[in-house]
Amino acid sequence: MKTYPIALVPGPVSVPQKIREAWLTDFGSSDLEADFYELYARNQGLVQKLLETKESVVITSGEAMSILWGGVKSALRPGERLLAVASGLFGEGFAEMARAIGAEAEIVAAPYDDLPDPRKVREAARRYRPQLITAVHCETPSGTLAQNLRELGEIAREVDALFLVDFVSSGGGVPVEVDRNLIDIGLLGSQKVLSLPPSLSVSTVSSRAWNVFERVGYSGYDAYLPWRKVPEVHALPYTHDWQGMTALNIALEAIMEEGPENAYARHARAAHLCRTMGLEMGLTLFPMREEICSPTVTAFNIPDGWTWNELDSALRSRGLVVGGNYGPLDGRVFRIGHMGSQADETLVAKGMGTLEAVLKGR
Amino acid sequence: MKTYPIALVPGPVSVPQKIREAWLTDFGSSDLEADFYELYARNQGLVQKLLETKESVVITSGEAMSILWGGVKSALRPGERLLAVASGLFGEGFAEMARAIGAEAEIVAAPYDDLPDPRKVREAARRYRPQLITAVHCETPSGTLAQNLRELGEIAREVDALFLVDFVSSGGGVPVEVDRNLIDIGLLGSQKVLSLPPSLSVSTVSSRAWNVFERVGYSGYDAYLPWRKVPEVHALPYTHDWQGMTALNIALEAIMEEGPENAYARHARAAHLCRTMGLEMGLTLFPMREEICSPTVTAFNIPDGWTWNELDSALRSRGLVVGGNYGPLDGRVFRIGHMGSQADETLVAKGMGTLEAVLKGR
Repeated sequence: MKTYPIALVPGPVSVPQKIREAWLTDFGSSDLEADFYELYARNQGLVQKLLETKESVVITSGEAMSILWGGVKSALRPGERLLAVASGLFGEGFAEMARAIGAEAEIVAAPYDDLPDPRKVREAARRYRPQLITAVHCETPSGTLAQNLRELGEIAREVDALFLVDFVSSGGGVPVEVDRNLIDIGLLGSQKVLSLPPSLSVSTVSSRAWNVFERVGYSGYDAYLPWRKVPEVHALPYTHDWQGMTALNIALEAIMEEGPENAYARHARAAHLCRTMGLEMGLTLFPMREEICSPTVTAFNIPDGWTWNELDSALRSRGLVVGGNYGPLDGRVFRIGHMGSQADETLVAKGMGTLEAVLKGR
Repeated sequence: MKTYPIALVPGPVSVPQKIREAWLTDFGSSDLEADFYELYARNQGLVQKLLETKESVVITSGEAMSILWGGVKSALRPGERLLAVASGLFGEGFAEMARAIGAEAEIVAAPYDDLPDPRKVREAARRYRPQLITAVHCETPSGTLAQNLRELGEIAREVDALFLVDFVSSGGGVPVEVDRNLIDIGLLGSQKVLSLPPSLSVSTVSSRAWNVFERVGYSGYDAYLPWRKVPEVHALPYTHDWQGMTALNIALEAIMEEGPENAYARHARAAHLCRTMGLEMGLTLFPMREEICSPTVTAFNIPDGWTWNELDSALRSRGLVVGGNYGPLDGRVFRIGHMGSQADETLVAKGMGTLEAVLKGR
């Protein structure tokens, strides 16, 4: 379906018209123009403000998977060790990435409907002595939100590891507090809370991380190193996406105008309404406890008597598109995305009303 | 400068309004929709037709450097050997990429204003026994076009190497003939002849190349392997860029409507006019011979009495933006881009008239 009448997907979310209009300008060549570097610097400053960091910000071209790969490859050499804090597919994915480059990996795991226990993370970190500890703030497929980033960040410092956090689908909708949480490498996607198309990626990089990146010396499209000096030298590792960077500026300015606190409150309200309406109509949350549910996406168990394909078709026939799932949750859990442009109580009420009508209509 | 009044840059080229309007649609999630996979397949078919290949087509998200890196990393393991056929920065870059991943590399080099001698390539290939031979069709910084792809492709077959060709800035403006030229990995950028923003990359992959990719087993954002089964399994390695894919469809359909032969003739005419007007106003071509000049970009020596910065400022004050250079050609050679939307005799005449007025005005 080209355009969703009622879009409640867990990303790419509905892109507002004023953001899409960034593409109507026929921009020049990003490589050649001081204007572009000024825009890049402005966006860096806005991201620092939004994610509460004084450290570097890197904005690259490519879907968010590019910075997941780039973060792992930039921070680890073959033979080094990654400790993945995981209660979902993306958390586990970091271990797979490490193994793919000849590094070793261990996972401190919890069931997908729960969060890993930080005490187990500390034990594992002290024993395993990883160079990199990875965590996922919002596990989009599971609808959970990590509650203990600061503690994980402290553990990483204790064992002299870098702390990488995937906040691809939470940043901007939930406070991320990069510096307070001791996050060395922070990863944000464009098609989630920022409500852009899936073509840009945003990262925070601490000076600790830059030092490791220099030691590792990784080269590639997704390498961070060539971005370190972009603000000073005005040279890019490839031709950047000026339309995308303009769209990012519109999105960031909109969050600043609203006020990040107000944006977080809007996400919390939308999520609360989604959960409340879902529970009232007899659905059950996939996460074990409501407190660990993400304000950006809600995961419900597929109700008895329905297959995902049947439910998806029935919802689509009424204009509502939500997310299914994959991996072990495929066919068991579905998801309502209410992040960015979709963190809107009116929209959520409309979507959940449609869902209720479909479930009752059976 | 946000928008160029007279754009004759060697990419990213001016993006036509009808292509930019692809972003006005609020597309759904590429992961979820059969429509998207149909569009992907349609674009694959159009690329096959344009580049004259029956082999696979892969369309990824990220600037063209992503497929340059991805091609080398997918085709070579550490310790293996790359032979780079090079008479320019991009040709040499493939050797650097190979070395960055622990492979070895040798360069068959020619001066930047000339083309490498295929006899030397054959000698080197027989002696060095590379796993991968790389060549650049159009060396954008030098304005040269390789004339002997078929011969290079035959050499690669003789020594059982893959043949990778960067036709990033020529494909669509010059016949590439992937199958006839025995190209195993063909690389095309979005912001050159296709006249899209710099956010998509297009590759051709032969079955020989897929077999090597399987053996090498490279994993990463820029890895080719996960794309092999996209058409059958309807699963993507990351969320694709639906707006970008729609823009690509508009661009490809426009070339098909015009007819590839007519598009090539238009590029040849624009290039001929550019060279003729340049020579008439006393400029000298950077390439040694007019026969090796690319129909997509013309490189002239910066005339005596001018620095690049002075010339660039003077041209910009009249609305004309062209390309400078970098590496060894920085400050010595400048470039007129007449590819894609800019392969237009009226535009070239206007731009070259402006250039002449500026040079005479001194």
